[in-house]
Amino acid sequence: MQLGLIGLGKMGGNMRERIRRAGHTVIGYDRNPEVSDVKSLEELVQQLDAPRTVWVMVPAGTATQTVIDELKDLLSPGDTVVDGGNSRWTDDEKHAAELGIKGIGFVDAGVSGGVWGLQNGYALMVGGNKEHVEPLEPIFEALKPEGPYGYVHAGRVGAGHFSKMVHNGIEYAMMQAYAEGWELLEKVNSVDNVREVFRSWQEGTVIRSWLLDLAVNALDEDEHLQKLRGYAEDSGEGRWTVEAAIDNAVPLPAITASLFARFASRQDDSPQMKMIAALRNQFGGHAVESKE
Amino acid sequence: MQLGLIGLGKMGGNMRERIRRAGHTVIGYDRNPEVSDVKSLEELVQQLDAPRTVWVMVPAGTATQTVIDELKDLLSPGDTVVDGGNSRWTDDEKHAAELGIKGIGFVDAGVSGGVWGLQNGYALMVGGNKEHVEPLEPIFEALKPEGPYGYVHAGRVGAGHFSKMVHNGIEYAMMQAYAEGWELLEKVNSVDNVREVFRSWQEGTVIRSWLLDLAVNALDEDEHLQKLRGYAEDSGEGRWTVEAAIDNAVPLPAITASLFARFASRQDDSPQMKMIAALRNQFGGHAVESKE
Amino acid sequence: MQLGLIGLGKMGGNMRERIRRAGHTVIGYDRNPEVSDVKSLEELVQQLDAPRTVWVMVPAGTATQTVIDELKDLLSPGDTVVDGGNSRWTDDEKHAAELGIKGIGFVDAGVSGGVWGLQNGYALMVGGNKEHVEPLEPIFEALKPEGPYGYVHAGRVGAGHFSKMVHNGIEYAMMQAYAEGWELLEKVNSVDNVREVFRSWQEGTVIRSWLLDLAVNALDEDEHLQKLRGYAEDSGEGRWTVEAAIDNAVPLPAITASLFARFASRQDDSPQMKMIAALRNQFGGHAVESKE
Amino acid sequence: MQLGLIGLGKMGGNMRERIRRAGHTVIGYDRNPEVSDVKSLEELVQQLDAPRTVWVMVPAGTATQTVIDELKDLLSPGDTVVDGGNSRWTDDEKHAAELGIKGIGFVDAGVSGGVWGLQNGYALMVGGNKEHVEPLEPIFEALKPEGPYGYVHAGRVGAGHFSKMVHNGIEYAMMQAYAEGWELLEKVNSVDNVREVFRSWQEGTVIRSWLLDLAVNALDEDEHLQKLRGYAEDSGEGRWTVEAAIDNAVPLPAITASLFARFASRQDDSPQMKMIAALRNQFGGHAVESKE
Repeated sequence: MQLGLIGLGKMGGNMRERIRRAGHTVIGYDRNPEVSDVKSLEELVQQLDAPRTVWVMVPAGTATQTVIDELKDLLSPGDTVVDGGNSRWTDDEKHAAELGIKGIGFVDAGVSGGVWGLQNGYALMVGGNKEHVEPLEPIFEALKPEGPYGYVHAGRVGAGHFSKMVHNGIEYAMMQAYAEGWELLEKVNSVDNVREVFRSWQEGTVIRSWLLDLAVNALDEDEHLQKLRGYAEDSGEGRWTVEAAIDNAVPLPAITASLFARFASRQDDSPQMKMIAALRNQFGGHAVESKE
Repeated sequence: MQLGLIGLGKMGGNMRERIRRAGHTVIGYDRNPEVSDVKSLEELVQQLDAPRTVWVMVPAGTATQTVIDELKDLLSPGDTVVDGGNSRWTDDEKHAAELGIKGIGFVDAGVSGGVWGLQNGYALMVGGNKEHVEPLEPIFEALKPEGPYGYVHAGRVGAGHFSKMVHNGIEYAMMQAYAEGWELLEKVNSVDNVREVFRSWQEGTVIRSWLLDLAVNALDEDEHLQKLRGYAEDSGEGRWTVEAAIDNAVPLPAITASLFARFASRQDDSPQMKMIAALRNQFGGHAVESKE
Repeated sequence: MQLGLIGLGKMGGNMRERIRRAGHTVIGYDRNPEVSDVKSLEELVQQLDAPRTVWVMVPAGTATQTVIDELKDLLSPGDTVVDGGNSRWTDDEKHAAELGIKGIGFVDAGVSGGVWGLQNGYALMVGGNKEHVEPLEPIFEALKPEGPYGYVHAGRVGAGHFSKMVHNGIEYAMMQAYAEGWELLEKVNSVDNVREVFRSWQEGTVIRSWLLDLAVNALDEDEHLQKLRGYAEDSGEGRWTVEAAIDNAVPLPAITASLFARFASRQDDSPQMKMIAALRNQFGGHAVESKE
Repeated sequence: MQLGLIGLGKMGGNMRERIRRAGHTVIGYDRNPEVSDVKSLEELVQQLDAPRTVWVMVPAGTATQTVIDELKDLLSPGDTVVDGGNSRWTDDEKHAAELGIKGIGFVDAGVSGGVWGLQNGYALMVGGNKEHVEPLEPIFEALKPEGPYGYVHAGRVGAGHFSKMVHNGIEYAMMQAYAEGWELLEKVNSVDNVREVFRSWQEGTVIRSWLLDLAVNALDEDEHLQKLRGYAEDSGEGRWTVEAAIDNAVPLPAITASLFARFASRQDDSPQMKMIAALRNQFGGHAVESKE
């Protein structure tokens, strides 16, 4: 099968490689000419036989919108655009409608796999109409891990990115779970060797998982994580998950706590804790720590 | 009425003063001879007419236990000991039993008021048997604020400290409420003058309170709390409140979140966030911040 | 001063009364002819002398948008519209821009006070340009409580509703604080009389507040709240507060916990707890409760 | 190797079987004569050659204490007792001291594996002195899963149960993570087939784990978990984890949120939400839901 692929960064470049290994033809475009197969989007479109499939793998937001706007003008009725980036699910319906006016199909694909995807395969959560999704299945088959799992047609347009977003929300709380347990074990004296406790959990326990394996890898590199700062970014999906929960009146205490822990980790000094200190001083004469 | 008062620190000293102003006789003892009225516990006990009432106002834990052990030997059947310190309610039954063997009564009194108590009165939450509590009411009357509120006989032994502990748990979450709101207002651009917003809330709003008045005082002294570090101690009652909730399977999400926010404020670098950073690096190749 | 007031429901009707008591002229319009002073918006605008001030007090969202759209056509350059409803602050800039094209000023006013406002005054948090806000001050003066507090010009357009929204977020966590403490006190045996403990806190404590007074009122009506279901709606501002916090990467653990507790209170059976039960059964053979 | 095993319930019975399959001699005692190999603890001790090893696998608390008290009298210096039950780590030091007076060794072993242990092996987290732990390694080897993981000597007495307790705390938050994500996916319309989304996650994703596999099993049995009530017990370790965190001033927001969600799931009607409803009614005249 033939595929156009726009965006050949860390994710897109590896995906091109994995799809090619499965025997498909990939024409890749990137603004960086050193990795691009063609000189322009126009050329990419020209080189594909109709009906064309173009997979967009660029940053969510403005970059994705710009590419979709350009493709709307370049593609023809019967072609299909796949947004495989981290777009917010609420953008998908808008994009589907914009392309649909021209008779161009739209599919949203949440992609998980990170730096391990080239080797192990990418998990794919896909949203869209059956008529647009089914013809793409050879590509999904090439990208996904071997075995029965790793691909789902989750529902209509938006369902792919929504499912991927919830995946990331769950990921936040799972990481937080291990992190909290690790801190508590490191804090007490009776446990000598926290790293080996984590290692032992990799089989036979209720909490064995791939994230646990990664935690052991990290502890093997730096047993007490002394080289790191306790500072964690968030990539957007965690925030969107909480916002989706609020829209739907679903309580998400653990996922939200995990997101807030990251927010707090990025504050040098907590404004709200200054207010707590100030109030304690006002009513109790409790000593406060001053800045100097 | 006659009262022995042991412990003449910030709290005890002011309480002696307030009780005396009400016309009662207070014989105070403190290890610091400069503030003490007598040279020893023995002397204090000798100077009181039976049946004696001795109010203990020393730090919870070992100090309180030591004084109660000594009083058990010095006092006589029919005397009463009041523990007005911040003892854990679970200690009260033990103390009541120890003193009860000798026929000495025991009353626990949670005392709120801080540095404002001398002037405004102390709120009192009292636990114990009616026969021990009622004779003490002239003292409670002297200590409490004027007006109909500020004193309650909450229940049997332990109920006073338990009620005071829950009071402090509520206090944690109320302080956190204002602190969170203040941080959010300070963060956004559209609100010019957060201090004046807080000030305006002091009348006509649902959230007017004494703590809000104190917040305004604090902001008047230091508008953006720039002189403070975001660092807050906890005094024990918050922890006990959460532990009591766990014992009783009562969910306390807001109070517990407030306690944990204080714990986190005292960490220079969060161990659990190091683990989050390590995991993100493992699966996604996300950059981490190193210590140097 | 002359004021047009649109929306004469529970809030608007009382506000008309309070402004009139202060000696101003209020021409009120409501779709309900029984309470309306005029038959139409057109008539309301005709009866006001230029430059006109029209205060909109209708439900946030579509109703407010519709009225603002109509006023845009009916009013003249130099007139001013005040949105005193519970609009989301993000709508304010849009409304200001829409009206601004026609030279009409816009002011957003967050109003607190509920059923007590007529008697005690309404707290007002106002956003907008000085040139639009200052001429309105006689009206604000009439609405606000007596005394120095209860009114603030918080900042530019949107700052009024933003401040009111944060006020409500704080309110959520304060209510949750008392509610958690109350449940814990009710649960333990040692405390006989939880209502009297709450009553006693009304003076001399750190947690005295208007909400506490209301809690005592409620317990006086129904000591153990046995007539109520544990079911709480949320009015939107709590959700917006959490969303604003997420937009600004501000952790709000206590306020968010309070919002989630309300969400959970409205579920007859918790879907997420079904999953917990299912997992426990899968790995541990733990008994589950079935529906029948 | 020879082992005495006390307690042949769901866990103990399967462990006896697994140890025997590895070629060791197990003499089991249970109060139920149908499963017991001997008639009494005395007989069990007589049949073992010195130095004896006796593994206690009875419910934590009174039952474990009773057995340890009896073994203290029956065993001889040089023998070793293993507590493989779910005892609180704080009991381990006490038990070690009680047995140590008689020269009897003590080892605490946290055991994970549930109903799957017989087939897949039990994960073991062990605490105690090297001299007591090392002679037991053939038994640990027989119980643990094949492969390099599943067993750790975590530290001194108490470290085994502490590690197992933290394991369970992590488990609480991981289960909550999947549960929250599942509820959110079930709530939205765009995702048609939540079960298939969960199934797809089993390979290639960041959140693949054994618990996820179990979740898919559960959804295969009952796609929307309609047969279950949203009701979850907690077994003690989650509570102890939070208490240990409080003792050590470690914030555990996600684990604690997970515990509180279980507490709330067991309440037919939430007392704290009654207070919220009562307060909303007091200040805003908001309708409340009454019981009838």
